[in-house]
Amino acid sequence: MPDVFSFSPIGHLATPFPDKFGIPRQPSLAPHAMGNLRLLPPFDRPETVRGLEAFSHVWLTFVFHQTAGEWNPTVRPPRLGGNKRVGVFASRAPFRPNPLGLSLVELAGIETVNGVVLHFRGVDLVNGTPVLDIKPYIPFVESLPQAQGGFVDGPPAQLSVAWSAPAQTTCDLARLKYPALHLLIEEVLAQDPRPAYADDPQRLYGVRLYEFDVKWRCNGTTAIVEALE
Amino acid sequence: MPDVFSFSPIGHLATPFPDKFGIPRQPSLAPHAMGNLRLLPPFDRPETVRGLEAFSHVWLTFVFHQTAGEWNPTVRPPRLGGNKRVGVFASRAPFRPNPLGLSLVELAGIETVNGVVLHFRGVDLVNGTPVLDIKPYIPFVESLPQAQGGFVDGPPAQLSVAWSAPAQTTCDLARLKYPALHLLIEEVLAQDPRPAYADDPQRLYGVRLYEFDVKWRCNGTTAIVEALE
Repeated sequence: MPDVFSFSPIGHLATPFPDKFGIPRQPSLAPHAMGNLRLLPPFDRPETVRGLEAFSHVWLTFVFHQTAGEWNPTVRPPRLGGNKRVGVFASRAPFRPNPLGLSLVELAGIETVNGVVLHFRGVDLVNGTPVLDIKPYIPFVESLPQAQGGFVDGPPAQLSVAWSAPAQTTCDLARLKYPALHLLIEEVLAQDPRPAYADDPQRLYGVRLYEFDVKWRCNGTTAIVEALE
Repeated sequence: MPDVFSFSPIGHLATPFPDKFGIPRQPSLAPHAMGNLRLLPPFDRPETVRGLEAFSHVWLTFVFHQTAGEWNPTVRPPRLGGNKRVGVFASRAPFRPNPLGLSLVELAGIETVNGVVLHFRGVDLVNGTPVLDIKPYIPFVESLPQAQGGFVDGPPAQLSVAWSAPAQTTCDLARLKYPALHLLIEEVLAQDPRPAYADDPQRLYGVRLYEFDVKWRCNGTTAIVEALE
């Protein structure tokens, strides 16, 4: 049996997230984060996705391409405050022996006119992520509400989000191009994408979404959108 | 960005199934199918699984090593009677562009005395399957009971299982070595692992479990265990 298995992407995901920073850490936390996947040849035939529309959710198996090649036996999950270590196999951290990721996304639409483009809702992956496989989600097997989820036993606490007047104005204009931008920004900031232990209410943070650099501060439990650049 | 990503197994799964035929098609269908995974160096340090015991279920990302290299745009899922085609990405078939599999299993135990051995319940994979990754199951994100499961909208119809006297005797003796063999055989045969459209009550089928060749017939909705060889 071979010791090495090689795989090629079936496509690369287009998402609102140009870089890792700020990406919601679970796919369901930002339902307005839309992504799409154009299948590469020879997978771009409508037959390959025939019947997929009967499923509401799909698994994306992808490569953590930005972290490939680095791993440690333990990691510090953000959910544990970044100061407690668990085993890499007890986490969903991107730094893994085999940097394979698994993301459950909602299937929002399928285009098969020119090639095949799949649209997803609730993506939590960086723009350009190489996707290796798509599989339908099978609720009768994979929905286990009674399972014990270790240290990830519910959604994290969320911030409320407030807007400065200039940021609101810029966002309103941008909504011609991105109708759900307002909601996406709120969903992303609600996850509190600060580095662990950063707690300076004056400090300005930046999160990139599409071509915007969203500048925001955090005051207690409120994220304040200061500007969209 | 590379067009090819290479991965090496972190271990090979030991299961009761020497070959593909007869394996339950979903992991939860045979809770007495136990499997274990000994992590290979350099992953065989107790740190790599620290904290995993707090999760009841884990995802195994594995290679369909027996079917690697073969795929078609459409497949005929057994659940559709084997005569209707759906797209390969609308199925969990092993013949895929990238032959990666995903199996949700119950974590039954963790040994960390000599290396690391993980024990699983409800495995549906062939003995020797190369495993690329282990990830904890996160119910608050991955349990979606309301999701639409397409053509896989519930467990398949099951057969009842009856035993011939000789098969029962052989199984009773074998239970010294495999205490749950009786239950495992019943769970496997209940899934009706006949080839599609085989419907001859006289025909003897074989399913290999551990070192046994389980001979059985199917009469209507009853599987009859005739012998363990």
